[in-house]
Amino acid sequence: MYDAVTAFIDNNLDDSINALIKLCRIPSVAAKNEGLEEAAALVESMLKDVGLETEIHPTSGAPVVTGWLDVGAKRTLLFYDHYDVQPAEPFNLWESPPFEPEIRNGRLYGRGVADNKGDTISRIWTLKAFKDTDTKLPVNIKFVIEGEEEIGSVNLPEYTEKNTDFLAADGGIWEFGGAGIDGRQEAWLGLKGILYVELESEHLSRDVHSSNACILPSAASRLVLALNSLKDSTSHILIEGFYDNIKQLTESELEAIKKIDLHEEQLKNVYGIDEYLNDLSGDDLKNAYYGDPTCNICGLTSGYQGKGPMTVLPARASCKVDFRLVEGMHPDDIYNKLGKHLVDAGFIDVKVTLLQGYPAAKTPINHSFVKIVEAANKRVFGDMVIHPTSPGSGPLYLFNKHVPMVSIGCGDYESKAHSPNESIVIENYRMAMHRIVAVMDEMCK
Amino acid sequence: MYDAVTAFIDNNLDDSINALIKLCRIPSVAAKNEGLEEAAALVESMLKDVGLETEIHPTSGAPVVTGWLDVGAKRTLLFYDHYDVQPAEPFNLWESPPFEPEIRNGRLYGRGVADNKGDTISRIWTLKAFKDTDTKLPVNIKFVIEGEEEIGSVNLPEYTEKNTDFLAADGGIWEFGGAGIDGRQEAWLGLKGILYVELESEHLSRDVHSSNACILPSAASRLVLALNSLKDSTSHILIEGFYDNIKQLTESELEAIKKIDLHEEQLKNVYGIDEYLNDLSGDDLKNAYYGDPTCNICGLTSGYQGKGPMTVLPARASCKVDFRLVEGMHPDDIYNKLGKHLVDAGFIDVKVTLLQGYPAAKTPINHSFVKIVEAANKRVFGDMVIHPTSPGSGPLYLFNKHVPMVSIGCGDYESKAHSPNESIVIENYRMAMHRIVAVMDEMCK
Repeated sequence: MYDAVTAFIDNNLDDSINALIKLCRIPSVAAKNEGLEEAAALVESMLKDVGLETEIHPTSGAPVVTGWLDVGAKRTLLFYDHYDVQPAEPFNLWESPPFEPEIRNGRLYGRGVADNKGDTISRIWTLKAFKDTDTKLPVNIKFVIEGEEEIGSVNLPEYTEKNTDFLAADGGIWEFGGAGIDGRQEAWLGLKGILYVELESEHLSRDVHSSNACILPSAASRLVLALNSLKDSTSHILIEGFYDNIKQLTESELEAIKKIDLHEEQLKNVYGIDEYLNDLSGDDLKNAYYGDPTCNICGLTSGYQGKGPMTVLPARASCKVDFRLVEGMHPDDIYNKLGKHLVDAGFIDVKVTLLQGYPAAKTPINHSFVKIVEAANKRVFGDMVIHPTSPGSGPLYLFNKHVPMVSIGCGDYESKAHSPNESIVIENYRMAMHRIVAVMDEMCK
Repeated sequence: MYDAVTAFIDNNLDDSINALIKLCRIPSVAAKNEGLEEAAALVESMLKDVGLETEIHPTSGAPVVTGWLDVGAKRTLLFYDHYDVQPAEPFNLWESPPFEPEIRNGRLYGRGVADNKGDTISRIWTLKAFKDTDTKLPVNIKFVIEGEEEIGSVNLPEYTEKNTDFLAADGGIWEFGGAGIDGRQEAWLGLKGILYVELESEHLSRDVHSSNACILPSAASRLVLALNSLKDSTSHILIEGFYDNIKQLTESELEAIKKIDLHEEQLKNVYGIDEYLNDLSGDDLKNAYYGDPTCNICGLTSGYQGKGPMTVLPARASCKVDFRLVEGMHPDDIYNKLGKHLVDAGFIDVKVTLLQGYPAAKTPINHSFVKIVEAANKRVFGDMVIHPTSPGSGPLYLFNKHVPMVSIGCGDYESKAHSPNESIVIENYRMAMHRIVAVMDEMCK
């Protein structure tokens, strides 16, 4: 089935890689509001080129690009992707420039190749294979491609709330996924929620000579005290009511988790660690992975950060903190509890700025579309590991009432999403396109 | 007395300012090991130009420049200065480029104009006034000008230990000083010691996606915990034995302190604060200012520090900390106690790097040379405030066994040493030269 389509994919792989490189050359960093319009326009033109009708939906932030093709099929497949990427800092750790993708040893390196421009192009290019081989698509197609996934999809609800009809489909492919450390493909059925805040302490009108620390308040010390009040040395979060309302993993999820091998010993080498947080292992490690919320310091800034000593009492200190939320927790609630915690603990001098927030969501592990993806994967890659949820976040909650979504993609455990030297294996990218063809085919069975 | 000399100073003020600007254009930042040789060479040539014999003493770091002129006088006056400056970061807060000095409203702005290139040039230029007016100097002159004051004079002992004879003098002028908030000149008789360390935590081989915070250790959280263990919310330092061995202020010092007005209400406006640390005021504030050691965060670094959110679990976090030490405390002892504290508290993962350290020192408040400086100041500026010690640090301990030193200079309370927009009042700079002439004269009475 669809041999001409898959042959086209294989024979024109270089062209599809070039299309990916073209998109990756645009440094569409949502956190910096850079390159977003340009990336949206390129994605839209690519959708048009493969025969889709398209629309650019303006929002208060980056536009949402949609594309659709109704071939009169019984089933409809929806793709959710994003054209924005994480910042590429720290730049000095990249072996090749982040926005000048480079191929080395069968991998393509560059910011966004894994998360998620590679997936985006692989999906569009699969449609090109159908078009250029004059093969009729077995399903109707919808694309929702946003430009603020990496900053919490802050304006995506402006689009989704007005376009719920468009979101209705028989199955949906979420943005990311790939091969685990054992080489098997992985699918993710859920995403944790997130609350991202910046904490800031400012105590002086300017940085002063540090000899004055004997009589002047220190913004950095106040921030350290405030951060320290948020969690204990085991990372247990001390904000009152933080763990209230958590919806525990279901019996079927726990059962599925028991069978999953996280390859904890091998992953220690990947991360360069001797032990996991709190020396977690086995079921405890897995339960934390799928079921625990977090409070993580993404960045700390204060005073002098250059070489050698500078004796300064900094006027300002700030910190970026992300909380990963599990089902049952709501970002507004946690944000309010965080604010109350800081006030109650006397940190009225620590300002909290909300940068993003949305709740967790999952597709039921027993849904028929999950079986379809599993069957399609088997035809191309073989057995697959199905995770009830990812420890990461995404705005799945905006979609999962309308369409069962499964996250698969062309990445792998060495893809370094959000880190320097992000990359994909080109062979995985090729086969991921074959798998999309197989998903379409399986949907019609 | 010496009217020709002071007239020369006044009539050639622009030339002396130009000499200062020339020195300030060299970004001699010791923390970055930049521009030091160049600044040393310029300072030496300036000393030669005013008739001194000179020598450049190599050390393991920046060279020490000395200059001397034996006119066969009974008394000898020694100057201690430094040609290095603090880093100019953060650059964006400077109203004019830090290394391109600019005059605005009677002030000269630039890195080092106050600390302490202005003082250095004013002292050299005073000698030029004697030379160019063919006036015999009333005292013999010695200069010790080092290039690593801002990084703790780490290599100065290599010079001082081999040249104790050169350090012997009847009086010495230390590097800094100036007008307080009430306009009166201030002299400083002592300097606190310092221990400057960098604390560093590293837990992963690379930054990773922050969703992994549920199972991976966080370098930033470990650093925050370690920092938090060093002092409590009142800034009381929790390192065992930290306060042992402290030599309390003497009766005469306490008596002198009682008479000093720190102008605490006015200084609140200067610093932009509503209250001092721990709401200190009155005698408590003064005792903390002159008598308390500190543990201050000079800088904090980890993870993403750019705009907006980036969801990363940083591999590394570091912090620069300075401890100001009072008499009786020794940096080696405190460094050892800090190391023991971290190990005992379980922070074997926090690496400590020693960046600088030396003990405190003071000139006795009743020393005759203090009276000489006070009398000289009275002739030029009027009454002066004499502080038993500065809350700041300097390598006075290397000198005060050989020469009684008093710190006076051309700065003022708005000079912003170590901060952006460092500046001096040009009129203070001019009068500081007159005062040096008066000190020489008073030494001969």
